Amino acid sequence: MSTPAQAVACEVGTSKAAARIRTAAIEVFAAKGYGASTTREIAASLDLSPGAVYPHSKTKESLLFAISLEGHNAALATVMHADQPIAPPALRLAATVTAYVKWHADNHALARVVQHELRSLSHEHFNAIADIRRTTSRVFTRIIEAGDASGDFQTIDVEAATLAITSLGVDVSRWFPSNTYSEPDIIATRYVELALRMVGAND
Amino acid sequence: MSTPAQAVACEVGTSKAAARIRTAAIEVFAAKGYGASTTREIAASLDLSPGAVYPHSKTKESLLFAISLEGHNAALATVMHADQPIAPPALRLAATVTAYVKWHADNHALARVVQHELRSLSHEHFNAIADIRRTTSRVFTRIIEAGDASGDFQTIDVEAATLAITSLGVDVSRWFPSNTYSEPDIIATRYVELALRMVGAND
Repeated sequence: MSTPAQAVACEVGTSKAAARIRTAAIEVFAAKGYGASTTREIAASLDLSPGAVYPHSKTKESLLFAISLEGHNAALATVMHADQPIAPPALRLAATVTAYVKWHADNHALARVVQHELRSLSHEHFNAIADIRRTTSRVFTRIIEAGDASGDFQTIDVEAATLAITSLGVDVSRWFPSNTYSEPDIIATRYVELALRMVGAND
Repeated sequence: MSTPAQAVACEVGTSKAAARIRTAAIEVFAAKGYGASTTREIAASLDLSPGAVYPHSKTKESLLFAISLEGHNAALATVMHADQPIAPPALRLAATVTAYVKWHADNHALARVVQHELRSLSHEHFNAIADIRRTTSRVFTRIIEAGDASGDFQTIDVEAATLAITSLGVDVSRWFPSNTYSEPDIIATRYVELALRMVGAND
């Protein structure tokens, strides 16, 4: 992951000013959609001139890439930090699903941008983000495989179970909060129960 | 549903020309996002002047509402048609999950627009669409409740299971097709297996 991280450091900058611009961009992209947003508006939301933003962000796409990289790396780090490879598979799955679901609930505006605007990235940037997504999925896949190997789980199809677990997490960012679920902890608890059932975990 | 249906007939029209404009709008919205699209571009994609579109579609938002209404009604009709209330609960759940997942795969461009651009609808139009969404969710809820009542299912939380099943279906439109799943039938089969496990169906 050092290559895209270095690339984004060059393109967008790692200064406090660059971070403020990214935060403003997340709000504008989340509110209007990436396609309808302009770097001019992002600058205006910070009381900056477009020229003041330019040194930190050459193009709108580089800003989207910086946000996508930060968001995907943050979600991956949260999941990896939650995983305790020596714990029983059911506890590992519970901890990682909780982390992933809560991240998408807690950061739903950012998550919506980074999960739903991928098609607007350049081919090269898309591939860098796709790498992080695959790494995240593999965390869940390895836990499911460990559970199947130990006899704790009886998964029908590991790839489908991985897809479903990550899809439920990602889609939280689309609908959260709803009338029924506005507490990240509560939806996380429900989704852990469902994920354990999907992999056929022993009760 | 007659009120929103009548409203849309007034606003967008039910003629062949209006239907062509909606089809063009789906393509433009799906490619660029709703926020970045203009009715001028939609007209241009049909070799029409903006003035020729105006009698069929007063505003871009009324076009989004017409598309959202058609899309949500089509998904609901597909699910209701698939349900056979006298069949065993597991067969009912399998048939309706298959229909819902396949609809989102087969119509992924339309589904992306109608599922991800709801925030751009007026309050009144949003409420009309939310009604159809609730009706669709209720089809799954009733099947789960019937399975729990008959002892065929042992659902932990009916509301969470309904949310997860509909969320998996909706999210298909975000990622479909992928390298792994490009056949609607195959992902539908996998998701039926997972849905049956989520409700604790007897094997």
